[in-house]
Formats: sequence, structure tokens, C-alpha cells
Amino acid sequence: MIRFDSDYMEGAHPAVLRRLTEANEIQTPGYGEDPFCAAAAARIKELCGAPEAAVHFLVGGTQANRTVIASILRPHQGVVAADAGHIAVHETGAIENAGHKVLTVPGVNGKVPAEAVEALCAAHFSDGSFEHMVQPGMVYISNPTETGTVYTRRELTELYAVCRKRSMPLYIDGARLGCALVSADCDYTLAEMAALCDVFTIGGTKLGALFGEAVVITAPALQKDFRYIIKQNGGMLAKGRLLGLQFLALLEDGLYEEISRREVALALRLKKGLAEKGWGFLVDSPTNQQFPILPDAVLEGLRADFGFSVWQKTGGGMTAVRFCTGWNTGEADIDALLSAIPENQ
Amino acid sequence: MIRFDSDYMEGAHPAVLRRLTEANEIQTPGYGEDPFCAAAAARIKELCGAPEAAVHFLVGGTQANRTVIASILRPHQGVVAADAGHIAVHETGAIENAGHKVLTVPGVNGKVPAEAVEALCAAHFSDGSFEHMVQPGMVYISNPTETGTVYTRRELTELYAVCRKRSMPLYIDGARLGCALVSADCDYTLAEMAALCDVFTIGGTKLGALFGEAVVITAPALQKDFRYIIKQNGGMLAKGRLLGLQFLALLEDGLYEEISRREVALALRLKKGLAEKGWGFLVDSPTNQQFPILPDAVLEGLRADFGFSVWQKTGGGMTAVRFCTGWNTGEADIDALLSAIPENQ
Amino acid sequence: MIRFDSDYMEGAHPAVLRRLTEANEIQTPGYGEDPFCAAAAARIKELCGAPEAAVHFLVGGTQANRTVIASILRPHQGVVAADAGHIAVHETGAIENAGHKVLTVPGVNGKVPAEAVEALCAAHFSDGSFEHMVQPGMVYISNPTETGTVYTRRELTELYAVCRKRSMPLYIDGARLGCALVSADCDYTLAEMAALCDVFTIGGTKLGALFGEAVVITAPALQKDFRYIIKQNGGMLAKGRLLGLQFLALLEDGLYEEISRREVALALRLKKGLAEKGWGFLVDSPTNQQFPILPDAVLEGLRADFGFSVWQKTGGGMTAVRFCTGWNTGEADIDALLSAIPENQ
Amino acid sequence: MIRFDSDYMEGAHPAVLRRLTEANEIQTPGYGEDPFCAAAAARIKELCGAPEAAVHFLVGGTQANRTVIASILRPHQGVVAADAGHIAVHETGAIENAGHKVLTVPGVNGKVPAEAVEALCAAHFSDGSFEHMVQPGMVYISNPTETGTVYTRRELTELYAVCRKRSMPLYIDGARLGCALVSADCDYTLAEMAALCDVFTIGGTKLGALFGEAVVITAPALQKDFRYIIKQNGGMLAKGRLLGLQFLALLEDGLYEEISRREVALALRLKKGLAEKGWGFLVDSPTNQQFPILPDAVLEGLRADFGFSVWQKTGGGMTAVRFCTGWNTGEADIDALLSAIPENQ
Repeated sequence: MIRFDSDYMEGAHPAVLRRLTEANEIQTPGYGEDPFCAAAAARIKELCGAPEAAVHFLVGGTQANRTVIASILRPHQGVVAADAGHIAVHETGAIENAGHKVLTVPGVNGKVPAEAVEALCAAHFSDGSFEHMVQPGMVYISNPTETGTVYTRRELTELYAVCRKRSMPLYIDGARLGCALVSADCDYTLAEMAALCDVFTIGGTKLGALFGEAVVITAPALQKDFRYIIKQNGGMLAKGRLLGLQFLALLEDGLYEEISRREVALALRLKKGLAEKGWGFLVDSPTNQQFPILPDAVLEGLRADFGFSVWQKTGGGMTAVRFCTGWNTGEADIDALLSAIPENQ
Repeated sequence: MIRFDSDYMEGAHPAVLRRLTEANEIQTPGYGEDPFCAAAAARIKELCGAPEAAVHFLVGGTQANRTVIASILRPHQGVVAADAGHIAVHETGAIENAGHKVLTVPGVNGKVPAEAVEALCAAHFSDGSFEHMVQPGMVYISNPTETGTVYTRRELTELYAVCRKRSMPLYIDGARLGCALVSADCDYTLAEMAALCDVFTIGGTKLGALFGEAVVITAPALQKDFRYIIKQNGGMLAKGRLLGLQFLALLEDGLYEEISRREVALALRLKKGLAEKGWGFLVDSPTNQQFPILPDAVLEGLRADFGFSVWQKTGGGMTAVRFCTGWNTGEADIDALLSAIPENQ
Repeated sequence: MIRFDSDYMEGAHPAVLRRLTEANEIQTPGYGEDPFCAAAAARIKELCGAPEAAVHFLVGGTQANRTVIASILRPHQGVVAADAGHIAVHETGAIENAGHKVLTVPGVNGKVPAEAVEALCAAHFSDGSFEHMVQPGMVYISNPTETGTVYTRRELTELYAVCRKRSMPLYIDGARLGCALVSADCDYTLAEMAALCDVFTIGGTKLGALFGEAVVITAPALQKDFRYIIKQNGGMLAKGRLLGLQFLALLEDGLYEEISRREVALALRLKKGLAEKGWGFLVDSPTNQQFPILPDAVLEGLRADFGFSVWQKTGGGMTAVRFCTGWNTGEADIDALLSAIPENQ
Repeated sequence: MIRFDSDYMEGAHPAVLRRLTEANEIQTPGYGEDPFCAAAAARIKELCGAPEAAVHFLVGGTQANRTVIASILRPHQGVVAADAGHIAVHETGAIENAGHKVLTVPGVNGKVPAEAVEALCAAHFSDGSFEHMVQPGMVYISNPTETGTVYTRRELTELYAVCRKRSMPLYIDGARLGCALVSADCDYTLAEMAALCDVFTIGGTKLGALFGEAVVITAPALQKDFRYIIKQNGGMLAKGRLLGLQFLALLEDGLYEEISRREVALALRLKKGLAEKGWGFLVDSPTNQQFPILPDAVLEGLRADFGFSVWQKTGGGMTAVRFCTGWNTGEADIDALLSAIPENQ
């Protein structure tokens, strides 16, 4: 069975594991106050061109989202997100459990349009009885989005302008950030993106780490007491060094970018192959998640040998599914999958 | 510098790391639905003599405490704990953030006395206007406690009897459970302890794992939908297999017990050495945490070469400190520490 | 200025005020444990044909909704509601603040269709990875709805059947319940409605009281410890007797029904008058809220003399507005309003 | 039966009821945006010498405490209170339900000593790993306290100095504020007290109103968006005017002070009478709550004719009980009670 279900089907890239093994017996303080975390944070600030940023390392994505959002909002505020946003749909109400409504706007290719945020704010702040409704307090986007699409510089710029106008921090969930940055749709660098938001994550779990999300808080006003909120939300790893070590392995010498390029290239190989066979896609994704629409009968035949995620029924006996590439996916895996899928007649 | 600050100063026991490395490229489903987690859960149920138990794997202790307690209590209920209980003092209000008061009773040697719980319940449930106060809804204890003491069978039996009489689940935080089970004060097996509570954890982080707490829910009524609560609290690890693999390494062939015995033996070597030098202790601990009371001047001299935790000033220029042994502590480390501490004149 | 903004623009029906005044100097226990509350609860149980129900009195609607929902749901569960449901839109995220997501389904005439709930549940419970999403845990409807429409017996029966099949309590917010029960669209009695749900409120604030919502919990499993949840949510009135006295005044001799009939009759007088003038409505409401669509220029002219609520722009220079009748609205008020609105040319 | 159980055993002072009745049919906007609330707020600002204060009206005390505290604290912060503080003991965990720990310090005569707060802060902010503990974020006191004692100007001044040094707002719960201000132990005016804290309440429920607490926020930084938090916590009364009307009745012409003086004078008459009979007191209270220690046999004999609250067993067959006077208590009531209590032999 070759698994394309998601990009967390294996362990870590060997270089990551090696780093953990090499440092295994070195003693350090706990809770992320060790030299490895310090070095990884310094490296990230350098890569982001953000020497004043605060960098923290958390284990997982839902944890990071919950912690960041809980840290920023006052009780009566909600977080604006796309209707398909991860926090809106697939985090079991973690944000609501932290007390906040997710205010959804219809996504356009999975992205939050600047004008939708402005319209929401305009409606809220112009209404005399606005205290009867949740106040928009920040904006959450994922880049790439849940369906693999990537914000352009223009989209980010416009969105951030609305956020600043409305005094709302902009938070970018970068669970697969590397894939966005190396994609053909991306016309900015990591440092440029860092300047177009207030806080973002650099995801490790889906790009070669065992686990780990780096939270980068560029806005000084949002940095205060963040470690308390991490601890309160159960996200402070006792052996925090494990996170520093992994991010060092990924970011010191370009491994993160290398893995990202590889994941994307293999996904595009699959995309091209499927297109050549005449199949369409739910969304035009330039990253490591592809969403072809295939006949149910074909999918049934694939199940014995390939793992994938069912996304949605599209009617007429067709279903959109998701294939993800991971750090360990090989060309042969893609080709085997392509061979198993017939041409569209 | 030799660190006795806590028992999470290094990576993992080599056998744990080896297990992770060997399985690194095997593909499995995510979120703990993999064969390694299944095998580890089966092994735990076997060791606990609890075939009907539900076993879940979480990353950290605060996360586990928060998740278990949030899963059990209704909004108006609180959790009873010792005044020095970890949830009462050192989890940044995670339980309160989940909406619940920690109802503290004075600990006796760090332990929650059955009669204190009964007295609290008797006062609460006899008072006509009791709905003005938080209702005791469950009991939390740690075993060993935060100061290294261990519940006896009799203490557990009496406490659990009160809990059952008052319809309150008993939860045992076993962050260092192995050390309790191998200690001289312990007169029960893991399986016997499992029958004297409703839910407990088996801590991996402090006993040879990189991280990981196994939550064992023996009470059927408390098992429903627990995975939702894990996810909501940010505790569902994408590569959940890492937890299953580590617990397999620890529990398949007795490594957990071996590490526990080693940690305790070395701590007792330290205890004996300090006693022979004439020093006293804050508490008489039979496990891997020792709390000697030493002169501040002596402690000052130790700082350059040894790590330890300051616990509390005890007056007269003396301070109680904590020394912890870990899976990687050696006899030479203990002896070096003892050599550096003078005799009490 | 004659106010039709809402149905809480004045004090209380004189009979309610008289009752409060008569009992003013009688001493009673606080917190709702007085003979007036007991008598009012008994009267409500009698009217509902529900001798085993638990009846509690709260001050306001948001408070009642929050308390009822917090009392019922476990942390990972959400409450299903119409997209225009009061809890979804106009309670400043009170439900999310209590930790729960409001799972919205598209309303049909403001009502929650049984099939939409069933579809939501079918999707949730059939999905293998359902613990990543909020679990539907109960259903909230308002009757009449936020736009004045009323559930039929068939709709309630079908909805309740889905709720029972899915083990989800059904909660009816009856902030204006009297208006529903006396409306032409209603084909059931209060007692019959009580048998088609698990908990509901009888609203006093908008039907002649100074304030007050009676919460009627017919399902025995939902009755436990409800007073704790009231207190925790700040809803336990010290002089709770005020609520009992008011509900006695309203329910002892049919005043509640009388006020409801009056409010509805006057609203229908307005509806008929506007229809005769050629104006259309956003929704066909049989109760005390009417939503005509009028030209902005007409509305501008009304503002000096009449209060009303702007509901939504409907395009073409037209706006749907809301006119509410209250216990003190008179025929002359309606006729004055009708006189001020020209015919549709 | 004459009830001294508490000070909310009757309805409202006749002047309050009269005001409600006179305005009953006047139409106003809802939710506290009416002229009566505006006039009452203006009057309060005048009395407090605080023209920049924000004044809001809530229904009850637990609601007010919960709303104020939720509005001020970030998630990782707790509120410091006396161990017998109302929020610590008698609000069913409302503060914890809002996510915050109540950090208790031992009360001295029920009061929070400035040095205890400073010691707590010093310990917290000096400890390197402070993010593992709840951060003190504000201070809550009640004046008079739960046992009737009153802060002196010096105590308030010292406490507020610590609060300012530690950047923690000081909140005074004035559920019975009038009784404090007229007491012999009070050496400051309302305006002077307003300058020694950041937010406080003026309680109406226990001093002649049907219900109502005025929240006065003097610190500009704490005023933002307070109405949202009121609404979210279910505290926004639809017919908010009822609160404005009652506070106008109480504060326009000195009725509040008159009632306070009367309550206190009658309580002191009781205190004097009991002392003359040779009975002691749990606490030396200068306000309307008195806590004599009486033999259980005497108390048993009183039950048929008098209501009172059992406070605590004091040993030797003696119990401390509470007698409260209310706006409607008369001299004859006190004398009847005194007659029923024998002399201490």
C-alpha cells in the first residue's frame, strides 16, 4: 500500500532523525529554554528578516492555532476565517472551546478575500447595536490553503491593508508553508510574507519533521506572555529541545526548502499525469495536495493499493479525492498511482 | 555540568530512539489509528489486567490532565486535589481555563487524605444552598506525588471508597508512575492500582521516552468520545505512531520498569549519602525525587557544576532543593554530587 | 413617537406590576426558593401537562439560552441552529464563550428543517475521522422564529423524531411563545408542544412582564443540578420571587394568552393594512413581528414619529423593516402608523 | 417569622417601586440605551466625582463580578481575592467558568492586606519559570467584606499602591457599598474611594432596589467594549430602563444613603443588645451584617420565629450565625429578636 492520504504518514526525514540522535545524551534545560531552541529561533528570525520577532515552538497545528488565537482575542471577539478554514471545520471546535466564534466568510479558491473581510467589518462597525454580535477581532488564513492554493502578494497586501485599517491582527497558518513558498503561484519570499502579517507558523510536521510548528510573532504588541498561554493550553513540551533540534535540521542548510520542492514537484507530476489522462480537478492546486475528480468505480479499484482521502461527492458517480505527497514520496510512487488510473474516456 | 533539575534533561533511552528509527519509513495512518498504537494499547491493557479499558496516547502531562478533567466534569463541578497538586499550582490555570475550579485540600506528605475528601463532600452535599458553591466532581491525585511520596494500597483503597460513595471518578496522574510502582512504599501492582481508580496515566516523558503519556480509562462510563476531547485540546498528534512506538519500546520487554528501578536506586544512593553526611530532608521520598535541606552557601557552591531546582526557603539560611534522577543518570553522577556536598557540622 | 422597534419598549402589564406591589413587603427566602416561584412552577407544570418537569425562572433570554445549552452539552458538542437563529447571530457569541460551536443549517422561513438536521448528523456520524469535527449534540429552535414564523405540529414531530433518533435533546426558545401558540399557523397546545421537545422556555419579557423567562425541562435526564449552572452563569436572581410573582400574574388567569392574542391581532391589523396598500413582506409572519418591504424614502419620513427596526436592504431602494407590537400597543397606534404609510403606486 | 437571613428578603423600597410604576407606560429604547439609564449614569458620575467614568447597570452581583473580571483579564491571568471572597467561595465557580483562577490570600478580618498581594506578586514575578503558574492580573475586594468589615482609607491606599506598582487593576465589589460608606470605620467619601480603584460596583439589590448593580469603570483603559462583554455574559437586560429608574430613585435625593444608615443603625442596635447580654461575635462588624456566636440550643429555639444564616460551628456547642438588616427592618423587629435571646450566664 502506498499512502497518499496525507503528508504525515511516515516518521521524519533522516537528517532530522540524525540530529535528534546525535544530541540525545546532551543535557539541557527543559521547556524550550535550551540552546537548540535559541539557535533555531535565531535562524528563523534571520530567514524572516525579523530580528524583533518572537519565535516559539509548538508540537501541533491545532495546538498552535488555539494558542495563538486565545492569546490575541478578548472574549467578545471572533476570528474571521474562510468557510473551509481548518479552524472552522477540522479542529473539533478548539477555538470555540477557547471561547471564540469563528466568523466565516465564503472562500474564493479557499482563500479569504480582502473585500469580504472589509464588508464584514463595515457591517459590524456601522450597526448601532453591534454589541449584540461577535466583534471581528483578527483574521486567520492558511497558506497554502486547505485545498492547496496559494495567496499572491497582491492578495496578502490587500488583506493586510484591511486588517490594519480595522486594527485586526492577521495570522497565517503555515502548516505547509514551504509548499506555498516554492510554488509557481508564489511571488514573495518568506521575509516578504513575514512583513505582510502579524503572526504566522512554519509547519514542520508535514515537511520532514516528526512534529513541530514554529510560531513567529512579528508584531511586538502580540508577544507579551505568550509562553503562559502555551503552557495553559498544554503545548509546552518538557523536552522542548526536540523542537529546536528539528527546526535546526530543517532550516540550517535549506532542507526545508528542498523537501518542499520535492513534495511539490511530485504532486505536479501527478497533476500533469492525471490531466493528460483527461481528468479534471476540484481546484487548481500548485502545491503538494491535488484534488482530482475521479469515478467512484476507479477509486474503488485503487483502495487495495493506494491510500487517499475522500474530499467530496461531486455528482454523477464522481468524487473529488485528495492525494498528498510527503517527504518520502518517490517518483515511482507517483508513477505506480498513475498507472493504476485509467484514461478518461 | 551535571543536571539533576528534573527528569527531562536529555533525549530518549537508546532503545526508544532505535524503535523510532527502525519504523521511520513505514507508512501508517495518522492520529493514533496505526498498528503501533494499537499494539501498545493492547500491551497496556494486558499489563493492567484491564481488557475493557480504553487507552489513548498524549504528548504531555498538562495536556493529559486538562483533557481527562475536561472530559469528565460538567461545568459546575470542580476537581479535588492536594494544595500542592500539579494541576493546582504548576499548570498555569489549565484546568480553570477549561472552566473548572481546583478544589484544594491540605495534602499530608503531598497526598490527598480520604477523610479530607469525605469532609469536603459532606460539607458540600449537606448544605441547603450548595448550588452557590462548586460541586466536587472528581478527585485528582499524583502517584508518586509532586514531592515523591507514594500512596499505599490502604490509602488508595480508602480514597477510592470515598470516591465511589460520592460518585466521583478518581484520576491518578502517573507522570512518574514507574517510580511509584518500584518504590519500597508501594504494596500493589499496576493491575491492582488500575482497579482502585477510574482513569490514570502512565508517564513516558520522565521515564525514558522523548515524550508521551498513556491515558488509561478503566471506567466504561468515562470512555465515550474521548478522542474528540483530545483533538479539541490540541493533543492529537498527527504522527501518533510516535507515541505507540515509544510505549512499545518501554513496555514490551520491561524497559519501563528497568528505567524506573534505576532512577529510584540512584536517587536512594543520593539520599543515603546525604543522610550519612548529616543532612535532613523536606520530605521522606522513596522515589526519584529527593528534597534535601542544605545551606544556601553550599548550594551556591554547587551551581557551577550541578543543576537542581530550588523548592522552598526553610529558614535559617537553609533551602530545600530538588534533585531528580533520569534514565541517563549514572552512579558517577551521584558520587560527584555527593563529593561536592560537605558534611553537616 | 410611537415605538414598534421591539416588544420591550415599556414596563409591565399593570396586572404584573400590581402583583409585585401587593407582595412587596412580604418576606420570603431568596434565590427562587420562595412560595411564589413554587406556585408559578406548579401552574406551569399544570398548563404543560408535565407534572415531572423541572421549572426554573431566569431573567433574560440570552442568559436562558446560554444556561440551558451549557447545562446539556459536553465540551466537544455543538448546538444545531438555523443560520438566523438568535444564538447564532445576536447573542455576542455567548454560546461560544461557554465553549460550544453553533452548527448552523440554512433556515427555511427561519425554521430548522428536520431533514437538514438528519443530513448533518448522517454526514458527521458516518465519517471515519469524525472526531476532528464538532459533534452535533442538541438542536435549538425558536418558536416563533426570529422572523415571526411558527412551527407546525408536523414540523415539530419530524424534527423531534430526528433528535430522538440521534440522541440529541431538542430545545425550543419561546421568547415569544405566547404569540406562536395563539397564531393561525399553530395546530397544537402548549402541552402538546411540551411533549415534542426536551426543554423549552416561556418568555415573559416580551409578553407583559418586566422581565423573565421560565425554563421548563421535561426530560428527566436534563434536570440534574440545573440550579448550579444558573448560578454559575450569573442568572440566579437574589429576589427570585420577582420572577415567580410575574409568572403567577401572567399565567394564573389567562393574562399571558390574552396579551399574546392582543399583540398578534394588532400585528395582523397592520399586516392587512399594509397589504391593502399594496406592500409586500419579507416573510409571511402570523405573529407579532411584521416585516414589510418599504421604500427608503417612506421609511425616512416615518422616523420622526415611529420607531422600528431596520432588517435588511432588499435592493431597488427598498428595505425590509420590522414592526413589533407589545402588550401596550393600541389600535390607534396601528392606525396612526398605517395612515403615515402611502399606498404602493 | 421575621427574616434576618439576608438583605434581599422583600421587594423594593416603596420609592423605588413608585418610580417604576410612574414610568411604566413611557416608551424607551431597550438594552440600557434609554434616558433613565443616561440620567442615572450621569448622577453616579457626579456623586463619584468621575466625569470620565463609564457606568453600566447589571442585574446581579455574580453577573457583575463575572463580567468585570472577564473583561479585564487575559487568559493566563488570575484574580487575587481573600480566601473568603465572594468570587472565591459563593459564585459556583463563575470566575473559573470564565477561564480564570481565583488566587486567594488569607484575609485579615475578611480584608485583603496590601502586603499579601505584594508578596504574591514578588514571588510570581521573581521566579524564572513563572509561566508555569497563573499570573496575578487584578485584585478583587469587597467593601464591606463578606463579614461586614470595612476598608480604611489607609488600607485602600496601600493596596492600590501595590496594584499600580504591579500594573494590576483594583476592583471593589460594592454589593453593600452604602453600608460601608456610612459606617464608623469609613474615613473616605464615595468620590475618594472612586479615586482609589479602577472599577467598582454600587449595589442596589441589598439596599432598597428590586435588583441592580451599577458598574463604575473609572480607568479609561478598561472601558472599551464593555457592553459586548455584558451581552455575552447574559447580563444585558432588555428593559434596561428598569435599572436606570431604580438607581435614579435611590441616588437622586439621598435615599441610598438613608437606607444604608437605617440598615446599619438597626444592626448596631442588635450588636449592642447582644453584647449587653454577654454574647461575643465572630467578627467586629460596623455594618448591617452581624455575626454573634450563640449556643445551638438558643438558635434552635429561635428558628420558629426568626430567619438567620448559619455561618460556622465554633466549637463547644456554639455556632456563629449571621443576622442581616434590610431596608424594611424595623426597630420592633430587632427588639423582638433581642427579647428572644437569653443572657449569657
